[in-house]
Amino acid sequence: MRLEDTALIKALKEDIGHGDITTSLLIAEGHKSTAVLIARENFILAGIPFAEKIFKLIDSEIKFKADKKDRDAVKAGSVIARINGNTRCLLTAERVALNLLQRLSGIATLTHRFVEKVKGLPVKIIDTRKTTPGFRFFEKYAVRVGGGSNHRFGLFDGVLIKDNHIAVAGGIKKAIKLARAGAQHMLKVEVEVGNIRELEQALSAGADIIMLDNMSIKEMRKAVKIVRLKSPGTILEASGNITTENVRATAQTGVDLISIGALTHSATAVDISMEIMPSR
Amino acid sequence: MRLEDTALIKALKEDIGHGDITTSLLIAEGHKSTAVLIARENFILAGIPFAEKIFKLIDSEIKFKADKKDRDAVKAGSVIARINGNTRCLLTAERVALNLLQRLSGIATLTHRFVEKVKGLPVKIIDTRKTTPGFRFFEKYAVRVGGGSNHRFGLFDGVLIKDNHIAVAGGIKKAIKLARAGAQHMLKVEVEVGNIRELEQALSAGADIIMLDNMSIKEMRKAVKIVRLKSPGTILEASGNITTENVRATAQTGVDLISIGALTHSATAVDISMEIMPSR
Amino acid sequence: MRLEDTALIKALKEDIGHGDITTSLLIAEGHKSTAVLIARENFILAGIPFAEKIFKLIDSEIKFKADKKDRDAVKAGSVIARINGNTRCLLTAERVALNLLQRLSGIATLTHRFVEKVKGLPVKIIDTRKTTPGFRFFEKYAVRVGGGSNHRFGLFDGVLIKDNHIAVAGGIKKAIKLARAGAQHMLKVEVEVGNIRELEQALSAGADIIMLDNMSIKEMRKAVKIVRLKSPGTILEASGNITTENVRATAQTGVDLISIGALTHSATAVDISMEIMPSR
Amino acid sequence: MRLEDTALIKALKEDIGHGDITTSLLIAEGHKSTAVLIARENFILAGIPFAEKIFKLIDSEIKFKADKKDRDAVKAGSVIARINGNTRCLLTAERVALNLLQRLSGIATLTHRFVEKVKGLPVKIIDTRKTTPGFRFFEKYAVRVGGGSNHRFGLFDGVLIKDNHIAVAGGIKKAIKLARAGAQHMLKVEVEVGNIRELEQALSAGADIIMLDNMSIKEMRKAVKIVRLKSPGTILEASGNITTENVRATAQTGVDLISIGALTHSATAVDISMEIMPSR
Amino acid sequence: MRLEDTALIKALKEDIGHGDITTSLLIAEGHKSTAVLIARENFILAGIPFAEKIFKLIDSEIKFKADKKDRDAVKAGSVIARINGNTRCLLTAERVALNLLQRLSGIATLTHRFVEKVKGLPVKIIDTRKTTPGFRFFEKYAVRVGGGSNHRFGLFDGVLIKDNHIAVAGGIKKAIKLARAGAQHMLKVEVEVGNIRELEQALSAGADIIMLDNMSIKEMRKAVKIVRLKSPGTILEASGNITTENVRATAQTGVDLISIGALTHSATAVDISMEIMPSR
Amino acid sequence: MRLEDTALIKALKEDIGHGDITTSLLIAEGHKSTAVLIARENFILAGIPFAEKIFKLIDSEIKFKADKKDRDAVKAGSVIARINGNTRCLLTAERVALNLLQRLSGIATLTHRFVEKVKGLPVKIIDTRKTTPGFRFFEKYAVRVGGGSNHRFGLFDGVLIKDNHIAVAGGIKKAIKLARAGAQHMLKVEVEVGNIRELEQALSAGADIIMLDNMSIKEMRKAVKIVRLKSPGTILEASGNITTENVRATAQTGVDLISIGALTHSATAVDISMEIMPSR
Repeated sequence: MRLEDTALIKALKEDIGHGDITTSLLIAEGHKSTAVLIARENFILAGIPFAEKIFKLIDSEIKFKADKKDRDAVKAGSVIARINGNTRCLLTAERVALNLLQRLSGIATLTHRFVEKVKGLPVKIIDTRKTTPGFRFFEKYAVRVGGGSNHRFGLFDGVLIKDNHIAVAGGIKKAIKLARAGAQHMLKVEVEVGNIRELEQALSAGADIIMLDNMSIKEMRKAVKIVRLKSPGTILEASGNITTENVRATAQTGVDLISIGALTHSATAVDISMEIMPSR
Repeated sequence: MRLEDTALIKALKEDIGHGDITTSLLIAEGHKSTAVLIARENFILAGIPFAEKIFKLIDSEIKFKADKKDRDAVKAGSVIARINGNTRCLLTAERVALNLLQRLSGIATLTHRFVEKVKGLPVKIIDTRKTTPGFRFFEKYAVRVGGGSNHRFGLFDGVLIKDNHIAVAGGIKKAIKLARAGAQHMLKVEVEVGNIRELEQALSAGADIIMLDNMSIKEMRKAVKIVRLKSPGTILEASGNITTENVRATAQTGVDLISIGALTHSATAVDISMEIMPSR
Repeated sequence: MRLEDTALIKALKEDIGHGDITTSLLIAEGHKSTAVLIARENFILAGIPFAEKIFKLIDSEIKFKADKKDRDAVKAGSVIARINGNTRCLLTAERVALNLLQRLSGIATLTHRFVEKVKGLPVKIIDTRKTTPGFRFFEKYAVRVGGGSNHRFGLFDGVLIKDNHIAVAGGIKKAIKLARAGAQHMLKVEVEVGNIRELEQALSAGADIIMLDNMSIKEMRKAVKIVRLKSPGTILEASGNITTENVRATAQTGVDLISIGALTHSATAVDISMEIMPSR
Repeated sequence: MRLEDTALIKALKEDIGHGDITTSLLIAEGHKSTAVLIARENFILAGIPFAEKIFKLIDSEIKFKADKKDRDAVKAGSVIARINGNTRCLLTAERVALNLLQRLSGIATLTHRFVEKVKGLPVKIIDTRKTTPGFRFFEKYAVRVGGGSNHRFGLFDGVLIKDNHIAVAGGIKKAIKLARAGAQHMLKVEVEVGNIRELEQALSAGADIIMLDNMSIKEMRKAVKIVRLKSPGTILEASGNITTENVRATAQTGVDLISIGALTHSATAVDISMEIMPSR
Repeated sequence: MRLEDTALIKALKEDIGHGDITTSLLIAEGHKSTAVLIARENFILAGIPFAEKIFKLIDSEIKFKADKKDRDAVKAGSVIARINGNTRCLLTAERVALNLLQRLSGIATLTHRFVEKVKGLPVKIIDTRKTTPGFRFFEKYAVRVGGGSNHRFGLFDGVLIKDNHIAVAGGIKKAIKLARAGAQHMLKVEVEVGNIRELEQALSAGADIIMLDNMSIKEMRKAVKIVRLKSPGTILEASGNITTENVRATAQTGVDLISIGALTHSATAVDISMEIMPSR
Repeated sequence: MRLEDTALIKALKEDIGHGDITTSLLIAEGHKSTAVLIARENFILAGIPFAEKIFKLIDSEIKFKADKKDRDAVKAGSVIARINGNTRCLLTAERVALNLLQRLSGIATLTHRFVEKVKGLPVKIIDTRKTTPGFRFFEKYAVRVGGGSNHRFGLFDGVLIKDNHIAVAGGIKKAIKLARAGAQHMLKVEVEVGNIRELEQALSAGADIIMLDNMSIKEMRKAVKIVRLKSPGTILEASGNITTENVRATAQTGVDLISIGALTHSATAVDISMEIMPSR
């Protein structure tokens, strides 16, 4: 049992409902085929273990032989996997498997593009919680495949004090103090700041991590200088409107982490198709 | 009970897990606030009834007042909704509600862009099954909000004979014949063709709908001419690599439907934020 | 994974709860047996693949050898299947398997009776949505096994305009027009009519399918004549109070489909028993 | 929360899927109506609280006013309930509510027919576990509404030693002894016997309840005489091929209980319809 | 499929959530190990089949070899089971398996202590419904492993009239009469009494089982004498504040059953650890 | 919606199954009562909001008035809450509500006892993952009510390197290095050490938190001295065989945290009862 199977089963039920009527009408019950998954463009592959699972959930007898594995840079026209088994089952599982692979590979590819831009710099590209409702486990997996790292998974595994919290709690210092006093001891405390003045407050209150929200490159450079001087252990995260154009400049400010919502909320799908091979 | 609530509850559990620790640490239990949802760019709004439901699932006492409704063209800076209630609950529901609104509005906005391009022409922009696994109900809803129409929901509510089916079944004619004989009487039979020769076969076999897959504008024009002459009731769907650049030319060929996978698989999120209002 | 397994597991839990206490008290844990399923009357068999699955859900080691298969006309006294394995598991699964087989075979047998009555005539016997809540997938399967065809599965895979819709929408013509304009392109539009006048309206509004509700044989004959003349492609469905006595006369009117609620709501169970064989 | 709501929600999802497309196309979103449920034949009503719940699960604002209640003998043509609310919701819930009412009332009516036949005699008409998989809770409820009583609900709340158990356990006496020794103290031990010799064994082994399986009226009379003499506290259940023709003669043998599988496995649905009232 | 698997899967998800991050970071994906489960004190073992299932739910390839089986009196330091397979999976499943074994063995051990105290006396030690919410199936299993018996499982498989019922129903006699008239015929009727006067009422009303609630040893002795004289078949259950100190004296009063809530609500966990063996 | 409702509904279904038969037989359908929850010993109360929810899940009309709230030190004999509503529903919900309150209050009371012992010292009493499978959310809540703090919730929200990890990973230093390199940036890295030598390794590898496993008081004192000197920010957790006898001495060594598995795995239930009040 893989705990993510529940989501894959749900996705299959969403597409199949009470049955794949076209396939039932046209394909003989015992017919067997080999199908290939083919890349239709260049991309970083992500999702192969889940795609395999999708076919096996429909029919545990299906053989799935992956020619490429997650993290591989796949070229247009290359075969990703060969799948052999009951033809009806292959066709019924096709779209769910492709939807998953196309979306995850799209995320991995976009992540990889950002990661390449900051090559050689001591910085991590990280994701956010801006994911498709119900599909976060898979999307965060794809970010890792693309060479990125994950920010917290949800509201339950990280303390992140944002502007709304600060406004209600009555200031950065008070908020950090409350968080440090009550947080489970294994969790660091991160706080969002919008300018140098807030950064200083966060530093003096003892934040473990400071997110520089929508600051200019110049401001970020200043922030890094202050932090490295006063509190070298504090982690700095740049956030807001990061593009492939400005990501290297951002990294060069010396921040430790760059978080990018677009990795998951605005990646576009890559093109993959499945073809039944002529049987001989 | 709305049947889609299950998916929203699942999305909330995905984000909240065993608790929103930051909010519990920083915000007093009984504190109340008003929050506003603000558009950060121009877009077509989609998902308001679901966003309202998300807040109410967390706390049924929350008041949600929508200033804008689905289908509205929202301007950057405008207020979308005002939400009043327990501050902890507002903050805990925030990201799930925003994730849903941002993705659905992104789809509606992209769909609307295509729909605008074919204005005045007797053609419908339709979606595909290329959706995020587990989130199809919402994504297809957003296509309709954007002015598009839906293709079949899944494998169970439409007979669509694709190249793989034809290859295994032994030809277009045989496939259509099998489908017409066995399909539930309320369903039309659609078949995918790649060239004029296949189109002629499909026509003579009595397909109700013919999908012109990746044909050139010129070929499509020819296909329309043939079909209108020989079988005026047959519906024609153009499919494959449709962009905002070529969609109008495609529509001008005279096809009835243009299906576009990108509506759901490659829409990018719009930018919306939630802000807690200063209480006075 | 077969998507219907969820329902079978639920049925097993309904019967077994926290345990089969009689069997636990009386049968030794490792005891093995062979059981046979025996027909106690003549009938059309339906449900064998599900019965096999029920036993295997309890214990994947059980061997299930079917002597008869779905669609077979089984004689009283004949063996349907031989099942070998852990005796406790055989006895625990017995009732759920029998309940399923008895009900599905009852439906298949009744359907078959209707189908036989219209032998040689170009008409299909179809079911309705009048099924046991939660058990429709299986009951519609049994109709097909009995030689019938299925009407739409639910509210989501067919447009069927009934009297209540017409009353609220403001007339047959308006209703059909709305439906044709908005329905997903793969779905035909069916409308219910109660007399010739309504039939004429439906025809002129372009209904794809017309259901003749509770009309006399004479009226139906007239309806067929009108439709074949004016709109030969339109499909006609007879509905309401069809019995094995009047089904052939109904079919002889020339309608294409005869829908019968009784197939699923009033079929009675056939008699099947399971017997543990003396071991030698 | 009523624990049976889960089953009703499942039944609604089965019918509605991703949406009631006909109603969405034809009925305006805010339209309100009054609908009436009308009996189309005479029957014993069963299921009104569940039918009400079904409508309220779709829309909690719907008003449901029952003119008749469970156990009432309803006449053809009479109004069972008046339901007021959103027209779309009324139409969407209609079939699930009717399917439930029609099946449960069919069971209650058949049960009532048997109960009437044995009027004045000290005997209870009881059901069996021969129910539709997944729907037992409701079917056993309907038996009680019809004036019958329930046998055990499942394998977990009664010790019932049947022929297969006896064969494997090594005889009636051994089986009863094992059961009495191990059974939870609140449960009586029932055993199935096929003739007078087995009855004597069961008696001497101390069975609390003895089921006379498929015995002739004459044999049953003899069995009653023996039991009343030797062990007046022992309960006797007649079982097997009981019809409305032979049920009174069976009761007159003096048995305490008569169990009838047909109550649930072979009841046919009664006819009920829903009509939207013209609004004035 | 074992029906209890659902609960084990839920327990695994509770602990693992979106992933075992420590193990993923530190252990190579394909690494294999052998682990041993070791008793850290003396106890009665309970839960081995469930522990095995927990490991196999994580990875069906894992080999689980039990050195000890349920009911065994295990000595501190002895090996309970050897488990071989993927190291990541072993470590991920560890805590859930140990939590289950430690709690169930604690219950079995405490039960066994009571059972030993009454050795040789014709009395059964039974549990109550005072279990951890959601975990009753397993806790009642552990009671049986420890040599105890189960009282009813829930509110649905036994008629037990308690003081609150009597107060509302209007007296012991009336309550018993109602219960006997309406209860399913396989269930005995048990009533709680607090003194001899109530006992006499219960006897005369025909209770099958009488629970002596919080009576003194002397009173219980008197109760037994009365019951054995007047109604030898009636079962007597002692209940309330039974400890290992007073359980034998209670048994010696002659009651048939002694029910003890502490078996499940106040057993403490035994100590078991898992160790990865050095590979050579 | 509270996300924990699912677990409470499951607990209710576990106890109620297909119905509370005793209550249905004895209590009139519309009867109303007031019930009181009464403490039968002194304890720290925990679980009131969940108990209220349990009653309301059965019947949303029930009024629940708490006289005591979570964290209150309740005296034997005092009224905890007054509950008014349908008598059947009160009795049906009783045991699940009591089971939850009794177990959670037991945990809170035991936790509080430890917390009192270390009064005035700068140390936190924390729990472990040694909880009842499926019930962790509630048990960790009770620890907080009792004045303790929580360790990580599961394997997903904390990096804790234990002896088994170290053995496989190839030593403390290597393990910490791997963890620091790969862990999500918001999580600290904790490592378990068994002696001073391992402590030194952990310190030099940069562990954020060090768990002193089963060390003597003397060793722990030495460990504290070393850590405060070399790395004042490092957090120290004492673990293993902590009792109310040795907890203060442990705290006095200067460690920051003391984790105690017994808080959840060996707390015993407190005694609470529900009584229906005589109506006047």
